[in-house]
Amino acid sequence: MSGIWGKNLQVNIFGESHGTAIGIVINNLPSGIALDMQFIEKQMARRAPNGGLYSTPRKEADKVEIVSGILDGKTTGTPLCAMIYNCNTKSKDYSSMKDLMRPSHSDYGYFVKTGGNNDYRGGGHSSGRITAPLVFCGAICQQILASKGIVVGAHILAISNNYDSKINSKITKEQLLSMKELVLPLINTSIVDDINETITEARNAMDSVGGQIECCVLGVPAGYGDPFFDSIESRISSIMFSVPAVKGIEFGNGYEMTKMRGSQANDPYDIVDGKIVTTTNNNGGVLGGISNGMPIIFNVAIKPTPSIFIQQDTVNVATMTKEKLSIEGRHDPCIVVRAVPVIEAVTAMAIYDILED
Amino acid sequence: MSGIWGKNLQVNIFGESHGTAIGIVINNLPSGIALDMQFIEKQMARRAPNGGLYSTPRKEADKVEIVSGILDGKTTGTPLCAMIYNCNTKSKDYSSMKDLMRPSHSDYGYFVKTGGNNDYRGGGHSSGRITAPLVFCGAICQQILASKGIVVGAHILAISNNYDSKINSKITKEQLLSMKELVLPLINTSIVDDINETITEARNAMDSVGGQIECCVLGVPAGYGDPFFDSIESRISSIMFSVPAVKGIEFGNGYEMTKMRGSQANDPYDIVDGKIVTTTNNNGGVLGGISNGMPIIFNVAIKPTPSIFIQQDTVNVATMTKEKLSIEGRHDPCIVVRAVPVIEAVTAMAIYDILED
Amino acid sequence: MSGIWGKNLQVNIFGESHGTAIGIVINNLPSGIALDMQFIEKQMARRAPNGGLYSTPRKEADKVEIVSGILDGKTTGTPLCAMIYNCNTKSKDYSSMKDLMRPSHSDYGYFVKTGGNNDYRGGGHSSGRITAPLVFCGAICQQILASKGIVVGAHILAISNNYDSKINSKITKEQLLSMKELVLPLINTSIVDDINETITEARNAMDSVGGQIECCVLGVPAGYGDPFFDSIESRISSIMFSVPAVKGIEFGNGYEMTKMRGSQANDPYDIVDGKIVTTTNNNGGVLGGISNGMPIIFNVAIKPTPSIFIQQDTVNVATMTKEKLSIEGRHDPCIVVRAVPVIEAVTAMAIYDILED
Amino acid sequence: MSGIWGKNLQVNIFGESHGTAIGIVINNLPSGIALDMQFIEKQMARRAPNGGLYSTPRKEADKVEIVSGILDGKTTGTPLCAMIYNCNTKSKDYSSMKDLMRPSHSDYGYFVKTGGNNDYRGGGHSSGRITAPLVFCGAICQQILASKGIVVGAHILAISNNYDSKINSKITKEQLLSMKELVLPLINTSIVDDINETITEARNAMDSVGGQIECCVLGVPAGYGDPFFDSIESRISSIMFSVPAVKGIEFGNGYEMTKMRGSQANDPYDIVDGKIVTTTNNNGGVLGGISNGMPIIFNVAIKPTPSIFIQQDTVNVATMTKEKLSIEGRHDPCIVVRAVPVIEAVTAMAIYDILED
Repeated sequence: MSGIWGKNLQVNIFGESHGTAIGIVINNLPSGIALDMQFIEKQMARRAPNGGLYSTPRKEADKVEIVSGILDGKTTGTPLCAMIYNCNTKSKDYSSMKDLMRPSHSDYGYFVKTGGNNDYRGGGHSSGRITAPLVFCGAICQQILASKGIVVGAHILAISNNYDSKINSKITKEQLLSMKELVLPLINTSIVDDINETITEARNAMDSVGGQIECCVLGVPAGYGDPFFDSIESRISSIMFSVPAVKGIEFGNGYEMTKMRGSQANDPYDIVDGKIVTTTNNNGGVLGGISNGMPIIFNVAIKPTPSIFIQQDTVNVATMTKEKLSIEGRHDPCIVVRAVPVIEAVTAMAIYDILED
Repeated sequence: MSGIWGKNLQVNIFGESHGTAIGIVINNLPSGIALDMQFIEKQMARRAPNGGLYSTPRKEADKVEIVSGILDGKTTGTPLCAMIYNCNTKSKDYSSMKDLMRPSHSDYGYFVKTGGNNDYRGGGHSSGRITAPLVFCGAICQQILASKGIVVGAHILAISNNYDSKINSKITKEQLLSMKELVLPLINTSIVDDINETITEARNAMDSVGGQIECCVLGVPAGYGDPFFDSIESRISSIMFSVPAVKGIEFGNGYEMTKMRGSQANDPYDIVDGKIVTTTNNNGGVLGGISNGMPIIFNVAIKPTPSIFIQQDTVNVATMTKEKLSIEGRHDPCIVVRAVPVIEAVTAMAIYDILED
Repeated sequence: MSGIWGKNLQVNIFGESHGTAIGIVINNLPSGIALDMQFIEKQMARRAPNGGLYSTPRKEADKVEIVSGILDGKTTGTPLCAMIYNCNTKSKDYSSMKDLMRPSHSDYGYFVKTGGNNDYRGGGHSSGRITAPLVFCGAICQQILASKGIVVGAHILAISNNYDSKINSKITKEQLLSMKELVLPLINTSIVDDINETITEARNAMDSVGGQIECCVLGVPAGYGDPFFDSIESRISSIMFSVPAVKGIEFGNGYEMTKMRGSQANDPYDIVDGKIVTTTNNNGGVLGGISNGMPIIFNVAIKPTPSIFIQQDTVNVATMTKEKLSIEGRHDPCIVVRAVPVIEAVTAMAIYDILED
Repeated sequence: MSGIWGKNLQVNIFGESHGTAIGIVINNLPSGIALDMQFIEKQMARRAPNGGLYSTPRKEADKVEIVSGILDGKTTGTPLCAMIYNCNTKSKDYSSMKDLMRPSHSDYGYFVKTGGNNDYRGGGHSSGRITAPLVFCGAICQQILASKGIVVGAHILAISNNYDSKINSKITKEQLLSMKELVLPLINTSIVDDINETITEARNAMDSVGGQIECCVLGVPAGYGDPFFDSIESRISSIMFSVPAVKGIEFGNGYEMTKMRGSQANDPYDIVDGKIVTTTNNNGGVLGGISNGMPIIFNVAIKPTPSIFIQQDTVNVATMTKEKLSIEGRHDPCIVVRAVPVIEAVTAMAIYDILED
């Protein structure tokens, strides 16, 4: 298994949920960037498990320790390694489950892949916890992109059947950034109570819920991305499906477009203030794999957290027998909320990578 | 721009819609494979424009000429280059449109990217025509995969609002393969007339329609794919978004799962005939990025062909003025049908690549 | 086997010595470059077998046909595919030798690697003939580098024991380029007769001779190359050992430096005309993998052509018996002369790739 | 700058000589390997600075802490991150030298590359110290290769003008391995005193000396490596030139072969014990980039340590003035001895990577 990603910016993640530490090496950063540690820490905190309504009771400060690639607070341009130590591990929670495959987790495939040598504790390297280093890296990318006038922002499009409004292509950078400050990043904040109720109900039922996250990138000029293989959509989707629980992605109006006629779906061109724009943005800012200068908009489907406390049917791979499984430990009733900064982070990584082509 | 794809199998496509030829170099093929030219040609013919109901009037035989990597009909293991000459080009159709950006095509981004040096004739290297070499390569991959007991098959899930049945995870290899023989690959063939009517109506209205294609891979053992970055979903989605007009992808029940609770979405394990299976397949055969031995199932959203004959609003990039555009030339009223073998082909490429890890 | 090379500029070579054609796909070229076909053809002619004293009697015009990536003589930025058809093949020369492994050729390893499915005719894809597409690509790179003030030039440092003078770091771009015009590119042209005699003697003795080629790159600014893995030396040496018959490389004073003390080998710094330089250039323009602004100088060892007409001991891999081999066909008594433009070409490719980091 | 290397085995090094730590992430290791920590530590100790005759006075235990990719002493197959903390740093030694470019070090190129943001202390990421993680990784590769019957061993071929015997292709695995136990790995141990005298003289003269290291790989079957670009020689040379101070490499008889005729240089085939061999090994086990089953033999040129205490001419990049430099701190009078395990390590990495193709 490889933890390497990227063509230009290249990262290498490592670590297990219940090992010593998780971390990342970031290669090909420019030198001389004074890291905005306050912004970085804020993004880390949005993802970190804090024991609140939307989170597992496991609390982790997710403090980042940078061990290389930096001098006097500025990047040196050499590989930047950052470590996040695992502080609050309770590995005994998992020991009894070594041979019981948790449904909808990677356990079984992972077991086969490694001949049973995988670190089964909390999903090991497959854990959603491994997204913490990605949030760190994405925060750096967001800082660099911001200096080029590019802003990345996401919101909760749905928790189960509770739908937020969709992002309008006329959204401003300020509006997009302001959602980062919300506990529940929503456009239509009147659905906060509905969402809280849905999550609470699921938690009380020892169950979980999923949802959708919509993401928008403002400021990417026309002309980026390749027609084949390295299309903007290819590169964004590729890293999105690295985020645990993502099961679908659509760009612009995606599946809705399959029911439209060409005359409805095509985005007509216009010239506004001397700049070429489209009057609609059904294509989400990408045509034939290449940016057209409009906001890049897409959304992802997040399945409900597979870890539920309701008893489930499973198998024991050691004895090859059917068994009942009651998951214990500490789990999120809904990971959509904590996933928002992760989606922003990996989007920023993808956009940064594309712009460096 | 690069035409290179793949980690293990590595291909390099090249060519323009109205240039001399299009083609592909396939690297890292095993040596000693006697190519099944009959199967290859059959797949090429399914994609080739034949002037029929579902196709552009431009007819191309899409005959493949192999210029290297083969001796006495068998692969030598060296880079295999295959050429497809463009025979039926009418470039004058396009000359008047050099500066008019066709809505929902890549023209504008491409123009900016290349400083106006792009081959604008028929979309140049962005043309859907470039998928022909992919079908050739995918046919070779399908032949090799078949020798390992792995079968790839796709069907039309929808043309506009006409929906076919979804693939059942109990589908057999024979059933999956049999759809390749149909003019309209459908599970529920009773909707053929509805589809024909929908396409004919769009054509008569000088418009176009889109749809969805569902694809299934049978026989992939558990344990393939990586938890991060090189997940099965990442690699499949990445190449899917290289296929022109694809705007969305979902694995298993994808977006439907966002509305389920974990207890409904999770796929319980069972043991059948001594083999570990899941009783449902909401996750489409992939968990945490890794195959679990169940059929790998996903579908893609295909937007309506952007080339329509209805007059559209556009801009002239040379004069920077708004203009009306009436596309002429030869175009498909619905590319979904011809896209089916393309989706199969790139899926086979992705699966072959994953299995070689 | 893969024919792909490069990080930024990426190429894919293909073809066999006695197949239909050999060729190359060049990816990531900038758009809008008007190719200097005269310069390209001149470089191709320097390498092409012309039946003269320094060449095999096989004559090939090595005419390049560009099939994609170009419009009206300018690059479009899309993959540029160029084909060179094999015109003068006499495959019957080789058929009797299918199972006889030619000493010091790749035949035996190649046979094992492919399970006997390799194209054995004239070395197949291992043939020195495959360097023709590299000369084409290198000529394009030299054209682009020249527009940035960077010049690549090589000369024959030795044919057997006949040594030319070494390149002085004070050499001008004009001097370096002028050697490209010589039939025998030498600094000290007084050794032309000695070289001709050495080659003629070897040819008459049905034998072959080797030599050394020294190459220089002027105009690379300080600061290129990475300290590890992607050092300038790593990237140049990597592609040099792709050139058939190269068995050694040294940068600057290379092996001579192993006998020096640090105080002799170190290159002291000076400031000349406001520019930092070193007063000596023992390190050949590269320190710790990174360019220091001085001329990049290295030389490569070329072994004698393995194809000789003297009878040799070999084995028959079909019968697993010892046999005597008398190579027939058409061969070079000394490939050093024709290798000079190849060394220049691949150097230009490496430098171009490094500068695009 | 990127610290990533490899096609199959992929590593990512990081760290600075005087930072918190140096380390490596190793990707794509097989799962289930019980690491031989004793062997690993032994190799680390051979390279570690121990204050002895052949070493800098800086003492570093170079203790490896594995933070991921391992469970109960066995590899899990996930990215394995190993850290080596810098314990004995005296950064004040360097602060006065920030703007003075040490001759024959990477300082100047590095300064230009990073706009002066490089970690100048002890060479930062360019330091020879960064080879410690490579020795760790190479030890794991040697362990895995040994389980496949492949052995890597190197010896000092020369310290300045004191030459050891060259490796004979009939060397046994035991003989090759036994040299790892020697303080001075030599074939002809009678030159130990001469070497010690040469190094002591250089040290007393505040100067340094260089040398050559010859390396041999036994047990690689025929058929590995590619004819172009990924030749065995390309891959070995590429990583060799990542080792600081390496300025040349030759395979087999390398430069000697340039003076031979083909009839002398060609290695005739023979059949011994039913196995195809060559009676000589001038080509060092590689023909046309592909292994032929004979021992793979090459040597590298190591320049004298650039850090000498004799006063040198340099420039101050801040003031752009000429200055005299007297290097202080702690340095090796001859790094050849400590480089032997490094050459073995990176060779093992390259061979492992090639075998996984």
